[in-house]
Amino acid sequence: MNTTAQVISPEHLLKHWQGHRALTRHVIEAFPEKDFFEFSIGGMRPFAKMASELLSIAAPALKGIVNRNEQPYSEQQTETLTTKAQFLQKWDEATEEINQYWKQIPMEDFGKNFNLFGQYEFPIIENIFYFIDNEIHHRGQGYVYLRALGIEPPFFWTRE
Amino acid sequence: MNTTAQVISPEHLLKHWQGHRALTRHVIEAFPEKDFFEFSIGGMRPFAKMASELLSIAAPALKGIVNRNEQPYSEQQTETLTTKAQFLQKWDEATEEINQYWKQIPMEDFGKNFNLFGQYEFPIIENIFYFIDNEIHHRGQGYVYLRALGIEPPFFWTRE
Repeated sequence: MNTTAQVISPEHLLKHWQGHRALTRHVIEAFPEKDFFEFSIGGMRPFAKMASELLSIAAPALKGIVNRNEQPYSEQQTETLTTKAQFLQKWDEATEEINQYWKQIPMEDFGKNFNLFGQYEFPIIENIFYFIDNEIHHRGQGYVYLRALGIEPPFFWTRE
Repeated sequence: MNTTAQVISPEHLLKHWQGHRALTRHVIEAFPEKDFFEFSIGGMRPFAKMASELLSIAAPALKGIVNRNEQPYSEQQTETLTTKAQFLQKWDEATEEINQYWKQIPMEDFGKNFNLFGQYEFPIIENIFYFIDNEIHHRGQGYVYLRALGIEPPFFWTRE
């Protein structure tokens, strides 16, 4: 067991990410069914399209990292999702997949480069931060959509 | 020098945060002067108020961490800022302060608890992630404001 001081441990970073994913799940839940798929501001994508992107990154990207497979980015797996309930089920499946793949990243690999989706050649930790940051970014946009719809979003610090 | 494998080093995490801060600076710049202070959607704060919050957290929070000073959160320092140029100048001053305070956090302290602003008792790394995440969250909202104003926001991956 590694007892050297760490800025953050792998387990802690996974918990941090899954906490964010739990909040995003609440944001999906907060949308009225129709608005989830249709509401938008300023020509941006509806939140369902953003959630498709998040689902197409998270588990597939980690799988790519673990298997060092540079398969291109694709939203194909989410094209069949047409209800909020289906998105939420897929979200929960991804939660489990992420937990499983995460355990397969050795500590010494976070600093190693990997060409994610055959396109993003960065240290693995930077790709992982991108997954988290991109989710926070789009979820923040979802908050504006909810407010514009007169719906109170979940508290930002909700992580369960 | 610590050569043990790390998920992320302190230097790398600082670079990550400052990269995000550089992007937020571009978002501030992208707003028309008037809209920066006045435009809002769904009863939310204008982006200037969000930027005030970000400025009131970043350097003051790190200073609190370094000095273990639990002085309460305050936006008083930003109340005198009435132009975008003043915000940008304050932003740049904060960039330097953050760099200086960051060096004063020993590696073994990231996992230690600190009661930030006398109110948020968490491991220091969790408070730091909060600063970054909260900035990404509000900046994502700023992107929607810009799009609603017909302005193209900077690319999300801009970090300089």
